[in-house]
Amino acid sequence: MPAPAFDAPFTESFQQLLAWRRDVRHFKADAVEPALLDWLLAKAALAPSVGLSQPWRFVLVQDAGLRAGVLEDFERSRAEAEAGIPVEKRGAYGRAKLEGLREAPVHLAAFTDTGTHQGHGLGVYSMPECLHYSTVMAVHTLWLAAQLRGLGMGWVSILQPRDIAARLSVPAGWELTAYLCLGYPAFESQRPELESTGWEQRRPPEGWLLRR
Amino acid sequence: MPAPAFDAPFTESFQQLLAWRRDVRHFKADAVEPALLDWLLAKAALAPSVGLSQPWRFVLVQDAGLRAGVLEDFERSRAEAEAGIPVEKRGAYGRAKLEGLREAPVHLAAFTDTGTHQGHGLGVYSMPECLHYSTVMAVHTLWLAAQLRGLGMGWVSILQPRDIAARLSVPAGWELTAYLCLGYPAFESQRPELESTGWEQRRPPEGWLLRR
Repeated sequence: MPAPAFDAPFTESFQQLLAWRRDVRHFKADAVEPALLDWLLAKAALAPSVGLSQPWRFVLVQDAGLRAGVLEDFERSRAEAEAGIPVEKRGAYGRAKLEGLREAPVHLAAFTDTGTHQGHGLGVYSMPECLHYSTVMAVHTLWLAAQLRGLGMGWVSILQPRDIAARLSVPAGWELTAYLCLGYPAFESQRPELESTGWEQRRPPEGWLLRR
Repeated sequence: MPAPAFDAPFTESFQQLLAWRRDVRHFKADAVEPALLDWLLAKAALAPSVGLSQPWRFVLVQDAGLRAGVLEDFERSRAEAEAGIPVEKRGAYGRAKLEGLREAPVHLAAFTDTGTHQGHGLGVYSMPECLHYSTVMAVHTLWLAAQLRGLGMGWVSILQPRDIAARLSVPAGWELTAYLCLGYPAFESQRPELESTGWEQRRPPEGWLLRR
């Protein structure tokens, strides 16, 4: 059976979806409906996974104390990470808004179950990192699906993965892949916030392809 | 400026795109037009990246000798990886077709430039793996875009990343994230090949969400 053909209007809208998907750090207070979150997670589960292992595991972090702890972890990690920022960028680093942990109605931690037996070890012997990569594709699918439904998502990577795993009391073998904030965006833009604030700019793809 | 709204027909087609995207290991001999490959890479470049680092680097592997070398690497890695497969699955492992390296008209190696200064180190101090994760999202974007255009892609992870980097003489600091086969699929299915051959089956997402 052939797959459906995708027409020109779909192609145009798909490009718009990619172009408008942003890392959101400013959220409205409006709640995200539970059914919408379920819909997003069902889309995430359509992502590719190494050996059909589906190693993604999600933790919805609702407890106010736990959220405050994650924010503390972020602030400590942010201070520590200044060591990795070039001296001339440290002023801008101090001023940048790098997460929406306080405002986002939904905190979703994405873990990878590195001990899963699903997939029977296929494809991970020489590249065990592919389990995490599968979770990353689930997260990316969720990100696009969120944008499609008018939501925004932000990925917070300025965290110590083991601290978050301990704080959230996840099962042994679950490793943090991404900590996500979800909600309705306070504003939208085709331009990444890191670009409009002058941190960095996107480069054209020409230099990224070698031929061998 | 608000982002475009995505309507019900787009949403339905987007779900179809996710549902039909497969890991393809059977390709027709038909060539992929260079302009189409350029289009796919331009879509990949719309992916999120940590700190706006855009660390993805692609190598189009066209030389027959290099391709034969990659196939050798795969075969050696496949034999080594048998140690990681449960004994009762080894017969099926030996029979499974796990790549389309011989038939695929396009071999594309996706590397991550771990030494890039783009992004100024933002977001990678405590989670340096996020550079690779950015490349994974570019690969996933390319995968969806390929499906949209009637192409199929397969991800070969049964390889030693350092061997491939050495073989392709990439710049220092480039680490292999994914080795990809691209081309027109010999057949299409909504069912993963690992499922139809009985290796593994997809599980419903119910068990993957914890609340804290």
